[in-house]
Amino acid sequence: IKKRVVLKNGNVNLCKEHIDKRSKRYLQDLFTTMVDIQWRWNLLVFAMGFILSWLGFSVLWWLICFSHSDFNNLDNESWTPCVKNVHSFTSAFLFSIETQHTIGYGSRYTTEECPEAIFVMCMQSVVGVMIQCFMVGFVFAKLSRPQKRSQTLMFSRNAIVCLRDTKLCLMFRICDVRNRSHIIGASVSAQIISRKVTQEGEVISYYHTHIDANFDSSDANVFLIWPATIVHIIDEKSPFFNMSSEEMMREKFEIIVILEGTIESTGQSIQARSSYLPSEILWGHRFEQLVSYRRESGEYRVDYGRFNNTYEVDTPLCSAKDYYEYQSFV
Amino acid sequence: IKKRVVLKNGNVNLCKEHIDKRSKRYLQDLFTTMVDIQWRWNLLVFAMGFILSWLGFSVLWWLICFSHSDFNNLDNESWTPCVKNVHSFTSAFLFSIETQHTIGYGSRYTTEECPEAIFVMCMQSVVGVMIQCFMVGFVFAKLSRPQKRSQTLMFSRNAIVCLRDTKLCLMFRICDVRNRSHIIGASVSAQIISRKVTQEGEVISYYHTHIDANFDSSDANVFLIWPATIVHIIDEKSPFFNMSSEEMMREKFEIIVILEGTIESTGQSIQARSSYLPSEILWGHRFEQLVSYRRESGEYRVDYGRFNNTYEVDTPLCSAKDYYEYQSFV
Amino acid sequence: IKKRVVLKNGNVNLCKEHIDKRSKRYLQDLFTTMVDIQWRWNLLVFAMGFILSWLGFSVLWWLICFSHSDFNNLDNESWTPCVKNVHSFTSAFLFSIETQHTIGYGSRYTTEECPEAIFVMCMQSVVGVMIQCFMVGFVFAKLSRPQKRSQTLMFSRNAIVCLRDTKLCLMFRICDVRNRSHIIGASVSAQIISRKVTQEGEVISYYHTHIDANFDSSDANVFLIWPATIVHIIDEKSPFFNMSSEEMMREKFEIIVILEGTIESTGQSIQARSSYLPSEILWGHRFEQLVSYRRESGEYRVDYGRFNNTYEVDTPLCSAKDYYEYQSFV
Amino acid sequence: IKKRVVLKNGNVNLCKEHIDKRSKRYLQDLFTTMVDIQWRWNLLVFAMGFILSWLGFSVLWWLICFSHSDFNNLDNESWTPCVKNVHSFTSAFLFSIETQHTIGYGSRYTTEECPEAIFVMCMQSVVGVMIQCFMVGFVFAKLSRPQKRSQTLMFSRNAIVCLRDTKLCLMFRICDVRNRSHIIGASVSAQIISRKVTQEGEVISYYHTHIDANFDSSDANVFLIWPATIVHIIDEKSPFFNMSSEEMMREKFEIIVILEGTIESTGQSIQARSSYLPSEILWGHRFEQLVSYRRESGEYRVDYGRFNNTYEVDTPLCSAKDYYEYQSFV
Ligand SMILES: [K+]
Ligand SMILES: [K+]
Ligand SMILES: [K+]
Ligand SMILES: [K+]
Ligand SMILES: [K+]
Repeated sequence: IKKRVVLKNGNVNLCKEHIDKRSKRYLQDLFTTMVDIQWRWNLLVFAMGFILSWLGFSVLWWLICFSHSDFNNLDNESWTPCVKNVHSFTSAFLFSIETQHTIGYGSRYTTEECPEAIFVMCMQSVVGVMIQCFMVGFVFAKLSRPQKRSQTLMFSRNAIVCLRDTKLCLMFRICDVRNRSHIIGASVSAQIISRKVTQEGEVISYYHTHIDANFDSSDANVFLIWPATIVHIIDEKSPFFNMSSEEMMREKFEIIVILEGTIESTGQSIQARSSYLPSEILWGHRFEQLVSYRRESGEYRVDYGRFNNTYEVDTPLCSAKDYYEYQSFV
Repeated sequence: IKKRVVLKNGNVNLCKEHIDKRSKRYLQDLFTTMVDIQWRWNLLVFAMGFILSWLGFSVLWWLICFSHSDFNNLDNESWTPCVKNVHSFTSAFLFSIETQHTIGYGSRYTTEECPEAIFVMCMQSVVGVMIQCFMVGFVFAKLSRPQKRSQTLMFSRNAIVCLRDTKLCLMFRICDVRNRSHIIGASVSAQIISRKVTQEGEVISYYHTHIDANFDSSDANVFLIWPATIVHIIDEKSPFFNMSSEEMMREKFEIIVILEGTIESTGQSIQARSSYLPSEILWGHRFEQLVSYRRESGEYRVDYGRFNNTYEVDTPLCSAKDYYEYQSFV
Repeated sequence: IKKRVVLKNGNVNLCKEHIDKRSKRYLQDLFTTMVDIQWRWNLLVFAMGFILSWLGFSVLWWLICFSHSDFNNLDNESWTPCVKNVHSFTSAFLFSIETQHTIGYGSRYTTEECPEAIFVMCMQSVVGVMIQCFMVGFVFAKLSRPQKRSQTLMFSRNAIVCLRDTKLCLMFRICDVRNRSHIIGASVSAQIISRKVTQEGEVISYYHTHIDANFDSSDANVFLIWPATIVHIIDEKSPFFNMSSEEMMREKFEIIVILEGTIESTGQSIQARSSYLPSEILWGHRFEQLVSYRRESGEYRVDYGRFNNTYEVDTPLCSAKDYYEYQSFV
Repeated sequence: IKKRVVLKNGNVNLCKEHIDKRSKRYLQDLFTTMVDIQWRWNLLVFAMGFILSWLGFSVLWWLICFSHSDFNNLDNESWTPCVKNVHSFTSAFLFSIETQHTIGYGSRYTTEECPEAIFVMCMQSVVGVMIQCFMVGFVFAKLSRPQKRSQTLMFSRNAIVCLRDTKLCLMFRICDVRNRSHIIGASVSAQIISRKVTQEGEVISYYHTHIDANFDSSDANVFLIWPATIVHIIDEKSPFFNMSSEEMMREKFEIIVILEGTIESTGQSIQARSSYLPSEILWGHRFEQLVSYRRESGEYRVDYGRFNNTYEVDTPLCSAKDYYEYQSFV
């Protein structure tokens, strides 16, 4: 695996250490912590929540029956217990789950004998609903995490450099494989992470430089209904202005590309990420066309099988700076 | 149906093919997949989820009773079974649904005899709530999809070209038929999809060109309480600058218009789309006024019956370029 | 009530008529329709949803029992009915609600006799949960409507005009009375609605003109932790540039002011609106200061009782244009 | 505690008084009020909601049985009561909770005798579900409040001033301690609150001045995967342009810094805040580097233990204005 900060699939290749009061901060934001951990731990927490509450109320029911001397009068026909047919901790546990979970078979039930039993029945009912509400909340948030939507967003495997209307351009492609819902308000941005040494001698190992990236001839907003070509014109403001094909290959940098937008189906915001290393930039290539029109059905056809395909084209191998100077002579 | 990418109602006229690992990507983002499919498939998935879990636990209950020899002691009065009154797979199924769905008639119930029965009862209870939580999540997301709100947003059937303060302008209208809640933070954008051939000979079949579109004299932000007229001034930056009325009619392009905003009722983001082909642009027309003031009730009255109406006005048929040149002589 | 489009409280004073396919559009977006209508209609729809489903399944249960000849064998001791103790439509209805709502007293219960009874029991269970899911969805959306949050956002009753660093400025105030949660990402905008006649003779009755509005010396973004003063500098780009105090009073226009942001508690977007008529603009006034510092508690104190208070200051009554010309002589 | 508006942790140090119709406004926006109050009050409201409804329906059941003379026929074997086994208010209460909460033991159940009993049973069932829906809504909103996410966002304890490429810069750091989900669409802004006296003599005690703040060499958008350094170049537009190190220490102002973005896990917007007083600005310091690369695992390592660390560097102590003038001589 090559040295990179953002992996091709958008995951971030970081290890964070020595965070002050980490556990405390994670607990204060319990909701995000629960949403971020794996499903199996969520389900374990839910199951434990129920089981512990059932057990807790079981103890209360057992204590109520014990203190009412119900266990000493199991065979007393004329005796009215607090709870009918509870005569051990096991049946107390069964009664607890039957009451809190509202199964209520009826083989065990509260009588009118004990106010404390009615009170605990009320409390257990409220607690039962509350645990369910929390569970609905966590499950819904976990289920509807919008970052999963970026599974169906793709960046091209390579970036390319070629001429477009006499300008050297660095380009890449993005697309969305879903077709029943779209990403709306989509915008794209790009930046370079590279080492920088300031005039004062400060060494900044991972310095971020923003680079302009536009959708065809438009701006950074992308109408993402079919594969979009994102264009960075290598002009004098560009960090690549002085780089030839050969020099770019030898440089150490990482281009982070980011697509942000809103999921049409849910109205939530998402971000899809990817990156390009110098070795993944194909100088003198052009992307294949993907869209064709089917006259018989009146539909536009997008062939994603060719999304990453490129073909070679004549492109000057010198830097943009040299090329533009040469052009102004000619 | 004319050849167009975005239909009048905003649907996108595309067929996406050969998507690598399509099923896997769709499954990884199960939530959006479930939200995107039709209601009948959602309901089928829910029903199957319940029925399969009831059946699965039925098998467990049957096995518990079978291994406890309950079925060999159905007539044994002194025998205590794991579950009372379960004596076939059918009654095991009934007990399963009565327990998981918490109906709990009580004709069948767990006794204190078997720990494994109590354990399965706990597990089935937790699973039952979990399936319900998932169902609430999917139903809520499905129900609250914000893209349905764009059913009550309309674009005018035609775009028009006429003069406004000596400038040739291309205009269209948008409106919101609801009046108890609004679209807030609304902004409008427009772009042209057309064929382009670069100087290097690259043929880009569907090239996107952004065009300026403003709300009256403002910017792209729209205060969408009544029909808004969106204005594109045909100046030297405009792709229509060199087109006469006749040339526009013969051109092959598609104007995509997009309205984005937030639904006031739910705080969710939406996008409404439409498009105009050259044949849908009326040169030398003007939109009718829709808003009048009712003195007796103190209300402003908006007559949507006239939303698409236009009337003819004297407008030069030459290109904006020719017209402005002519104006500078006169 | 004066003639205005946006009322002081932000409600919009419109009546929308002759909307093509209005009912159909409202039904296609049922969710927003349900969220927009009044609570009493929501509750009625929910109650009817339950009652009709209970009734519908009652008919099914009755038919099952009838076709199984259960009603002819009510006194037959050896007869096993499909459902125990159902012997009329009333008890079928009771059984329906006991089953679907999962009360399940047990006085009535399904036997293992009839597969169709078990099938209907499964269906009714799934339908019951589904209706509950829909109800949770509608109630949550209705409950969490973000537009209610604007009840605690206030605009000043009047706008003012006075000098600030030699510039004539039009100002108003906004504030948020809550202090446990804030509006984040708040931005303010303003526009004028007025009559306009173009050079071509087109009469636009309600033309929108955007005007610059900034937070103190910043931009349109507002840090809304205490009352913010929003400033529109009357410069040559301003529609008020040529207006004297007297002329402004006679003009017919409406200034719409809009605050947009996100509710910190829920992460939802909201918009608060208000308006100013010429008669509500106080020329030659200044807002009172509201914030003071309490040395003993180390807190800043904001006195909202004085939010709308102003005091008079010497201010030129001529137009900004005349005033700036005069200033350049002196 | 020093005099400041925004505390280091982002809480706002305000006391709001004399709010007109405060209670009414809070009640109209009940949802936000419920979300803002403490959990213990929420739980109390929920418990009371259930208990009061149980009690209310208890009274109804008691009245139904009383008016049907059921209490006078408790020992009448041939008598069919409206509700079986209800013979006091206590058992009416038990029946109410068993019915509404759907426990339904079955020791008490409705008969087919009384239409009014069936009607109340229907009403109580609908009310029970409705209370649960409200509870789910409030619990979910309360649980998913996005402002908790800012517990895991940190600002550096100090801001620093030093040279970067011959420019005096004021800098601070921000970071996110979570690594399984990120803040997307993050942007940073900064403003100064200070006392201002206008040329007209108006004293504005807390005047807001926006200052430019960028991420490294980019714009205000932050790619927040590891600690970001935010840079304010002290140029002629900066409020600090004329301040020397010594003068800054004596000034009275507060720099409010704000990070806004969207939580990747939930798609909700958040804002994290902090502030710097003059005494917290270290002139002539530089931040330590935190990121290193681990060759053996291919991971980047971020050492948060050093997040607040700085070291001294040679930096001119005069104002930026004097320094740049001096530079232009040399
Ligand atoms: K039950
Ligand atoms: K029962
Ligand atoms: K139940
Ligand atoms: K239930
Ligand atoms: K029961």
